[in-house]
Amino acid sequence: MGRLSTLFAPERVAVVGATDSEGSVGHAVTTNLLDSFTGEVVAVNPNKETVLGLPCYDNLAGLDDPGSVDVAVVVVPPTVAVEVIENAGEAGIENVVVITAGFGETGSDGAEREKRLREAASEYDLNLVGPNSLGVMSTPVGLNATFGNEMASDGDISFMSQSGAFITAVLDWAAERDVGFKDIVSLGNKAVLDESDFVAEWGDDPDTDVILGYLEDINDGSSFVQTAREVTQETPIVLVKSGRTDAGASAAASHTGAMAGSERAYEAGLDKAGTLRVESVQELFDYAQILAGQPLPDGDEIAIVTNAGGPGVMTTDAVGDSDLQLAQFGDKTFSRLREEMPDEANIYNPVDIIGDAPAERFETALETVLADDNVSMAVVVACPTAVLSFEELSERIVEQQEQFGKPVAATLMGGKSVDAGANVLSEAGVPNYFDPARAVGSLGALKRYREIKATEYEEPTTFDVDRERAREILESGARRGSNRLGVEAMELLDAYGIPTPQGDVVSSPVEAEAVAEEIGDDVVMKIVSPDILHKSDIGGVEVAVPVEEVRDTYEDLVVRARNYQEDATILGVQVQEMVDLDNGVETILGMNRDPQFGPLLLFGLGGIFVEVLEDNTVSVAPVSETEAKGMLDDIDSAPLLRGARGRDPVDEATLVETIQRLSQLVTDFPAIVELDINPLVATPDGVQAVDLRLTLDQEKL
Amino acid sequence: MGRLSTLFAPERVAVVGATDSEGSVGHAVTTNLLDSFTGEVVAVNPNKETVLGLPCYDNLAGLDDPGSVDVAVVVVPPTVAVEVIENAGEAGIENVVVITAGFGETGSDGAEREKRLREAASEYDLNLVGPNSLGVMSTPVGLNATFGNEMASDGDISFMSQSGAFITAVLDWAAERDVGFKDIVSLGNKAVLDESDFVAEWGDDPDTDVILGYLEDINDGSSFVQTAREVTQETPIVLVKSGRTDAGASAAASHTGAMAGSERAYEAGLDKAGTLRVESVQELFDYAQILAGQPLPDGDEIAIVTNAGGPGVMTTDAVGDSDLQLAQFGDKTFSRLREEMPDEANIYNPVDIIGDAPAERFETALETVLADDNVSMAVVVACPTAVLSFEELSERIVEQQEQFGKPVAATLMGGKSVDAGANVLSEAGVPNYFDPARAVGSLGALKRYREIKATEYEEPTTFDVDRERAREILESGARRGSNRLGVEAMELLDAYGIPTPQGDVVSSPVEAEAVAEEIGDDVVMKIVSPDILHKSDIGGVEVAVPVEEVRDTYEDLVVRARNYQEDATILGVQVQEMVDLDNGVETILGMNRDPQFGPLLLFGLGGIFVEVLEDNTVSVAPVSETEAKGMLDDIDSAPLLRGARGRDPVDEATLVETIQRLSQLVTDFPAIVELDINPLVATPDGVQAVDLRLTLDQEKL
Repeated sequence: MGRLSTLFAPERVAVVGATDSEGSVGHAVTTNLLDSFTGEVVAVNPNKETVLGLPCYDNLAGLDDPGSVDVAVVVVPPTVAVEVIENAGEAGIENVVVITAGFGETGSDGAEREKRLREAASEYDLNLVGPNSLGVMSTPVGLNATFGNEMASDGDISFMSQSGAFITAVLDWAAERDVGFKDIVSLGNKAVLDESDFVAEWGDDPDTDVILGYLEDINDGSSFVQTAREVTQETPIVLVKSGRTDAGASAAASHTGAMAGSERAYEAGLDKAGTLRVESVQELFDYAQILAGQPLPDGDEIAIVTNAGGPGVMTTDAVGDSDLQLAQFGDKTFSRLREEMPDEANIYNPVDIIGDAPAERFETALETVLADDNVSMAVVVACPTAVLSFEELSERIVEQQEQFGKPVAATLMGGKSVDAGANVLSEAGVPNYFDPARAVGSLGALKRYREIKATEYEEPTTFDVDRERAREILESGARRGSNRLGVEAMELLDAYGIPTPQGDVVSSPVEAEAVAEEIGDDVVMKIVSPDILHKSDIGGVEVAVPVEEVRDTYEDLVVRARNYQEDATILGVQVQEMVDLDNGVETILGMNRDPQFGPLLLFGLGGIFVEVLEDNTVSVAPVSETEAKGMLDDIDSAPLLRGARGRDPVDEATLVETIQRLSQLVTDFPAIVELDINPLVATPDGVQAVDLRLTLDQEKL
Repeated sequence: MGRLSTLFAPERVAVVGATDSEGSVGHAVTTNLLDSFTGEVVAVNPNKETVLGLPCYDNLAGLDDPGSVDVAVVVVPPTVAVEVIENAGEAGIENVVVITAGFGETGSDGAEREKRLREAASEYDLNLVGPNSLGVMSTPVGLNATFGNEMASDGDISFMSQSGAFITAVLDWAAERDVGFKDIVSLGNKAVLDESDFVAEWGDDPDTDVILGYLEDINDGSSFVQTAREVTQETPIVLVKSGRTDAGASAAASHTGAMAGSERAYEAGLDKAGTLRVESVQELFDYAQILAGQPLPDGDEIAIVTNAGGPGVMTTDAVGDSDLQLAQFGDKTFSRLREEMPDEANIYNPVDIIGDAPAERFETALETVLADDNVSMAVVVACPTAVLSFEELSERIVEQQEQFGKPVAATLMGGKSVDAGANVLSEAGVPNYFDPARAVGSLGALKRYREIKATEYEEPTTFDVDRERAREILESGARRGSNRLGVEAMELLDAYGIPTPQGDVVSSPVEAEAVAEEIGDDVVMKIVSPDILHKSDIGGVEVAVPVEEVRDTYEDLVVRARNYQEDATILGVQVQEMVDLDNGVETILGMNRDPQFGPLLLFGLGGIFVEVLEDNTVSVAPVSETEAKGMLDDIDSAPLLRGARGRDPVDEATLVETIQRLSQLVTDFPAIVELDINPLVATPDGVQAVDLRLTLDQEKL
């Protein structure tokens, strides 16, 4: 069990701010605790003698053996909350649930209070939930330390939510269905404990089969990725991260002050963390139920058994929309189906056992397909008919599911007439829906989770690089006083083994000529100035310059730069080998630093692909080789790297290595805030970083 | 009322094959009719004296006044069905519902029987439903001429389905909810009456507010488009067309023998028809309910009123995902909200009236936002709290909805505790969901339907073209005996006003030189042979040929063609003006003929865009100017036509006109089976069709 085990399995809980005045939060919390908690409830309130029949203490210190209190639930006014928490710490209490609101969510006074809360928690090493929390629940000990109306029923799902109201809604809704919970926590302002802590706790909890979360932000993306990635090897994590859209993000900011991290970073980060991200409440619980109730499939092949052609077609469409495959049956399956099913039946997948099928025929068909090694999972789609008992059908589905241990979902298409059957399925953990698309979607979630589990953690490769040289280049750039570096810092890439064209930045026509002579061919020349961002626009780039014109071109470039901005800082002129674009594909490789998840790598094809089609992909650094390869696969224009239209494929291995090397660079140097290699030209023979721009945060050097 | 009015509102119904043997279809149909039909039921069965207390007649002719029977329901064995239908025709009966199966769905004997059925129907001008149908229902007269278990309840939705089982499922499900129907028809094999007939009928029916359909194919796409486009101006049509995916299409083919028309054609055709196509059963009924219950919005702006921040954010995300816009409130709205709402409330959209909001506060907020001219619709999102009565809230929502006549959807987030409120909403036609995404999705459907209604039918432009010349070119191509024409038929495009580069197809070096001299510049030369499809691959194309090399090049091209295939038919060599590709964008414009919807135009950018990114769009011809413009908007790479990356925009007007001219060409000549202009080069000054391939069906010339 994890560090938070006494929070969820306490023996003694104190309510500080307990009261018997109805309608108050303190009353609701005390009543809820008294209703079902298997341990001892202690009331604390200096203004009361007794509360709801309990003796009432003035403060935590006044209790006998205050250190034996496992959880203090705080419902006092915000102005005294910090003091109460200090008292709890002094008394040796480990866990504090701060229901009190009026902290960070309410302006500067509140923010200051929240800071003091955090300090107190840190001083006494408190596990502090909230503030501004609905509270916590844990069904095994009947703990309902919330002010909500409804207690959760027993189950295997643990649920955290950054919205307390959403918890009340879910519990009200779950009460009607067979959705049960192990622990529930309302995260509140996440002053101390946050999503990473609960994911870690539930990952260690043998009674939690699925972790669900509603989040509006993530406190520390990097630590969440690390924690979740481990936990998800054992326990699936299904999340709604809201504020996905621009409108949603500003709504979230005004709701919880959630920092508007970039949606793309969240997408990449939550993916790297191995979570199953869903977009709607319906999906959240669909996924939770099937993950809690069904085993994982060993493949992607699904069999459909139905008594109705039309719904069979709809189900097949849903399979076509999903990542699942319609199973191809083996010969044995066909011959058994041919033998056992009526002539009019369709024995190909979807198996249509036709309208006069009783439950037995469903069972035979289901048994036959589940016995097939090519079938990893099944969905049973049944329309009501005079000869079919949904209840009997459900019992037989459950039997076959259990016999084969393969996941099964049901689509009993009806209303009242399915109730009895639906109950049988629900008790056995077999999900059931009216809409076949949901059944298939949920089975698809099992497949996704199987893949996540199968993904072994791969340590990012550490290449042999010249880190000291890189530091010197950054420092020398910083010494020049500008935070923006350009081609003059190309050596930075060399230091990390990212190939750049031959050439140099020079500061005189003579030097320019010398470099050109060494290159021994026509060259590209570019003005180098931190004040000139769009060099081409001012005539600051000349291509295919013959050696004999290099000196004059040097002068021309400087004149043009001066004409553009008289006092521009001119660092010199870059003289560079020509890169054979005819034989190469322009890509861009960049990074910007996300406040939550850290360095975010971006890769895409250059030119129209990035500017017009916005075809690019992002990944949280550091990336492993597999992740770097995945970035190539992620872009729609990837075939252009792979030899589309009769061209030779580019050197993909070097491109993938370059992504990893850049990943290493930006991980090694937090001072690099933003970086763009544009273009990074990929050819059949390798890559070349032709241009570079980066922004430094000197304080982090 | 339409032609089928007596089918759905009969006064006298005969069941041919009525019987009292339980468990039989004839028994079920007779019982269902007797249960609720307000008119007279007549039993026909030569083997019975009475059936279920009704006198039983030997045959339809034996009835007194058989012509007064409005509908004959046929449940006899397939072998005698045709005879029964002929009897019905002779007796002057107009409508026949053939429940009997064993026709087209069962092999060649059945198909032959179905043919005779069709002939009989045609001879007597019968409205024939089925065969292989579950039957028909119409609630105003209590008509249940089906063998299902459940009768529909009253409502405004009329529903057709190509799956009988799906009807039974929907009725079972609808019985629990407040989903009522006007008419229901199980289309069966659609031997005579099909989707177009019922759409036309319900379009004329004042009691049908929404038309729903589950279809696996469409008998005649063009006639459906024409009918539906008119009907949808008054009555929304919401369809599931299944077999969308490859897997689904083959499942549909094996279910109903649905012809696998191309999914892209269905997509384009159903769009042109003005239908709302949905993908899941859930959406089908979500859309139906809101369209039947709520008025159309006058804009896209949605207001959100909630007592819970988190669900407010989720709702906002759903708006971000949709085509709707978060409404920007006017000053009056802000000042009233500021005045009426507590300080802690968020008066910006989403309006968060916080957790202690009673129903009155919801009402005030809803009233305030609905009064705002910038608000076209609203969604109320409520989590359960101690101070909120969902029932009272629902009453107030209904009042405000009715007061302002703007559409409203509700998200009462709970289980049992919302039941009373949900009933209030349901009775008033206000949809309610647990998941805010569904509420927003349904409001989005209203917006889509408003747009469909607002789209006025636009007659395709008829350009002044040389149709006779075009016919001659096609005929002369046909006379050469090949069905494949190429550049030698470029004049076809000229005849329809589609610009082609200067040049000609010639059959000797001397002629070639003459053409080149007339062009007066370097030329492009291509071998012209119906046997050589990929000219470039065999060296059959030379570009930038100077006039003095034209003769030699002619010979070279012919030699290469002979080397490739000795007996190739060589029609000559095309000598063509060079088209300035540097200044232009290569597009492709093509057509192929869909079995259901007829000529399907395809437009996209050429090269990588079509080959690698598959970025193209299709539209059913003939297209209007607006539709042709829409094709440009539909492709992702459209910005490249519009001056992205500092280039001059192409002449969009001419490009749009060219699409329309091609549309006219392929509509005028059904003999053109396939056609590709690739590339069609678009420049700032116009377009040029550089290459052409087409396939002819000579029999249609």
